[in-house]
Amino acid sequence: MLGDRVDVSFDARRAARADKSGHAAAGLPIAVVHAESVEDVQATLRVATATRTPVVTRGAGTGLAGAANAGDGEIALSLRGMDRVLEVRPDDLLAVVEPGILNAVLNERLAEHGLWWAPDPASRAISTVGGNIATGAGGLLCAKYGAVRDAVLALDVVLADGRLLRVGHRTVKGVTGLDLTSLLIGSEGTLGVIVGATLKLRRIIPGETCTIAATFTGVRDAAAAAAAVTATGAQPAIMELLDAASLAAIHAHLGLDAPPPGTAQVTVQTDGATAADDAAVIARVLTGSGGRVAITRDPTEGERLLAVRRAFHGAMERLGTTLIEDVSVPRSALPAMFDEISRIEREYGLVIPTVAHAGDGNLHPNFVFEAEPDSAGVVEVPPRVWEAADALFRAALALGGTLTGEHGVGTLKSRWLADELGDDQWEIQRRITGVFDPDGILNPGKVFLR
Amino acid sequence: MLGDRVDVSFDARRAARADKSGHAAAGLPIAVVHAESVEDVQATLRVATATRTPVVTRGAGTGLAGAANAGDGEIALSLRGMDRVLEVRPDDLLAVVEPGILNAVLNERLAEHGLWWAPDPASRAISTVGGNIATGAGGLLCAKYGAVRDAVLALDVVLADGRLLRVGHRTVKGVTGLDLTSLLIGSEGTLGVIVGATLKLRRIIPGETCTIAATFTGVRDAAAAAAAVTATGAQPAIMELLDAASLAAIHAHLGLDAPPPGTAQVTVQTDGATAADDAAVIARVLTGSGGRVAITRDPTEGERLLAVRRAFHGAMERLGTTLIEDVSVPRSALPAMFDEISRIEREYGLVIPTVAHAGDGNLHPNFVFEAEPDSAGVVEVPPRVWEAADALFRAALALGGTLTGEHGVGTLKSRWLADELGDDQWEIQRRITGVFDPDGILNPGKVFLR
Ligand SMILES: Cc1cc2nc3c(=O)[nH]c(=O)nc-3n(C[C@H](O)[C@H](O)[C@H](O)COP(=O)(O)OP(=O)(O)OC[C@H]3O[C@@H](n4cnc5c(N)ncnc54)[C@H](O)[C@@H]3O)c2cc1C
Ligand SMILES: Cc1cc2nc3c(=O)[nH]c(=O)nc-3n(C[C@H](O)[C@H](O)[C@H](O)COP(=O)(O)OP(=O)(O)OC[C@H]3O[C@@H](n4cnc5c(N)ncnc54)[C@H](O)[C@@H]3O)c2cc1C
Repeated sequence: MLGDRVDVSFDARRAARADKSGHAAAGLPIAVVHAESVEDVQATLRVATATRTPVVTRGAGTGLAGAANAGDGEIALSLRGMDRVLEVRPDDLLAVVEPGILNAVLNERLAEHGLWWAPDPASRAISTVGGNIATGAGGLLCAKYGAVRDAVLALDVVLADGRLLRVGHRTVKGVTGLDLTSLLIGSEGTLGVIVGATLKLRRIIPGETCTIAATFTGVRDAAAAAAAVTATGAQPAIMELLDAASLAAIHAHLGLDAPPPGTAQVTVQTDGATAADDAAVIARVLTGSGGRVAITRDPTEGERLLAVRRAFHGAMERLGTTLIEDVSVPRSALPAMFDEISRIEREYGLVIPTVAHAGDGNLHPNFVFEAEPDSAGVVEVPPRVWEAADALFRAALALGGTLTGEHGVGTLKSRWLADELGDDQWEIQRRITGVFDPDGILNPGKVFLR
Repeated sequence: MLGDRVDVSFDARRAARADKSGHAAAGLPIAVVHAESVEDVQATLRVATATRTPVVTRGAGTGLAGAANAGDGEIALSLRGMDRVLEVRPDDLLAVVEPGILNAVLNERLAEHGLWWAPDPASRAISTVGGNIATGAGGLLCAKYGAVRDAVLALDVVLADGRLLRVGHRTVKGVTGLDLTSLLIGSEGTLGVIVGATLKLRRIIPGETCTIAATFTGVRDAAAAAAAVTATGAQPAIMELLDAASLAAIHAHLGLDAPPPGTAQVTVQTDGATAADDAAVIARVLTGSGGRVAITRDPTEGERLLAVRRAFHGAMERLGTTLIEDVSVPRSALPAMFDEISRIEREYGLVIPTVAHAGDGNLHPNFVFEAEPDSAGVVEVPPRVWEAADALFRAALALGGTLTGEHGVGTLKSRWLADELGDDQWEIQRRITGVFDPDGILNPGKVFLR
């Protein structure tokens, strides 16, 4: 039925075992289906339902939670090949796209119309819109322009049994019954396969951008300064925080002079009609909070200041193997959360370089460790690192936060999910997956531990 | 168990039969429970579950879809008395409130902190935050500042069996499993009783407002002008459109000179740092589209221009009985939707004054008719009016629109719901209600016709 869209080569099956979390499924999937059409997806799911075969949907496989990893006895269903832009409506500020298009490629196309889709994960050049939706992705511009949750109007979804469902509206508002569009956002392949999306667009923001980089003698001061910026009411487009360990690693990675020990950095970008005024206010607050501030209205110079932040992932890869975490706390709790991370570093004898989307309270602590890959090229996270991660999650929850701000639960966090949700809510969520997928063939074992 | 919170007086039971839709339930509810605490709500639901008694949750009863109407054999559970503000956090831009507080009262309290909650239904002075959430309410400022869907972080909900559930996050972002907060928004009392809400706030927008009123020789020109404003990219805070029948009725109601026959009006307000520039651009577009434009930066004069729009509901009440409708279409389809309304007026021999939130494509056609109230004070909508409403819904769907932009489905639109959703989606939504409410005691017969 699917002809050469079914790929049983060893290389394809091996690649489908893992995403970018550093984890891989046990064993190899039966096959990788490279869907080229809605009908291909429907055919795959009909076969899967008839044979009770689990299906793991994949976009680009850049996920950081192990949610797209396909293993023994499973079909990996790749949507990457379905990457067309079907419609762009500047007048209605919407676009209809297939799920496999890369976020950055879509935004290049939209730019021709003076439009953009706001969700901008740091992985935008390598991740798909479908994957962004299925994970509820965030990004650098979230605090000002919203995450995926705020930027999807409607979805076309293939159900476990192969039926095609259309949920949501082409209109700005609509309240016909339950909001299944929001339910599908962040559902990590457990409710259905997204085969089309109607996206809510913005017009490209006119005016200049201003960029500020401020260094502090310690991460706590930097975090307090970021909270002070939020408290002014001036809304940065971007506000990122690098702690001392990450700043040092990035400087080494980029061949820059080492910063004084303990130095942390806050990088801010403002945009729109009030960019310069906002930047002036923010620079004053950062200076007043003890920061050494550089500020520029020049785009090239601004990109140079931001390049330090953007080099974070590259710098981490050079440090060794990392477990990339993703807790989020109310913005006022950022300094306290950094205190907790220092405590965990001391207690567990670990280095945990951390970058934070300080504008929205989302932190990415990176647990660095040494470990040998196994024969399949997969590195197991040592128990001590998991214990430290457990301590991190508990600290975030105690501060009113959450396990995951934007990466999702996948396989990595499923064992902590009920701690955050409570058993009652966990059970209700589980039962809702049963409404969509009564035989439990969609991404089984992910998100909801059996 | 509930003492004098159980009210079996005739007056209370009679009042609970109806909301502002002009419809009432058959018969009288058994009792009205005036809940004062979460425990009261839990106790009510435990009794209801034990006795399989249906429960209709009510806020202020201002709904326009008959969703809060309680009848024979049902308990009306009023949350209006639970109206405390529990927490306001300017640093984290959130507030925790009880559901019964009126929207406008909450916003007065928030103003003391320089904050506001953006959802602003025209009923803000008389409707509750809980009712706003349960209906997914919109308002005048939606297109710029979002609807309820965009302004709720977390909810406390009592389930049908009396258990208390907390869903959502205090953080800006969070993706732990399925987004039950969004699922509850707009669920019209069918999934659970909202007993607490963590709201996402904004800082009060600094700067002036500018207000523009433009008259046109016909509604089609006015609609095209509004679409042209949207196309410029200048973002009005408010953009409302009154057709000729409503403008004439309002002028009569306010004792103003009658406008020339056929005159329609577009009212725009801009705010924030770019208010004056945006207003200048918009005024040019409206003039270029054939409008006669008045523009002001004076707040009092601006309020005077907006007062015409705000008098819409009062003016309608003087015309006779009205069925207030609520279709929404993609913004570019506004002119075509007005053509359809004219066609329906002609075909059914009706007058249908219409106001539109032109910034987001949501229209409120008011079907005016003469009818005598029955002995219970309830007016039945004549079949001819329902037929015209049916034609309206079909026209909206054909233009890519929806049955209801902000008022919800309730009893009034349940018979059309499957037309919009399709049978598969209707069935999935129905089954999800079963996960929350297996015995079907929460607002039975609403939204999902049995
Ligand atoms: C360097 C780097 C930086 C990153 N930065 C960010 C960041 O800033 N913010 C952020 O949120 N994430 C970030 N990520 C994580 C990752 O890029 C996102 O989670 C992204 O949304 C995943 O997209 P993908 O196409 O790679 O999906 P995959 O990894 O292939 O899949 C992710 C999940 O989505 C499901 N899925 C994918 N496509 C579909 C579909 N069409 N229908 C149904 N389910 C589907 C999968 O089953 C799986 O559960 C980063 C990753 C890397 C490697
Ligand atoms: C003059 C006028 C103007 C209006 N303008 C607008 C407008 O611009 N935009 C708009 O969206 N609406 C508008 N409305 C409609 C109405 O005000 C809204 O639907 C409002 O949100 C209803 O709030 P309420 O407290 O009156 O709820 P109710 O009418 O009491 O209840 C509405 C629904 O919510 C449920 N509900 C109420 N409270 C809870 C709770 N705590 N937990 C669970 N379920 C609950 C009820 O069961 C029912 O299904 C207008 C109404 C009037 C009369």
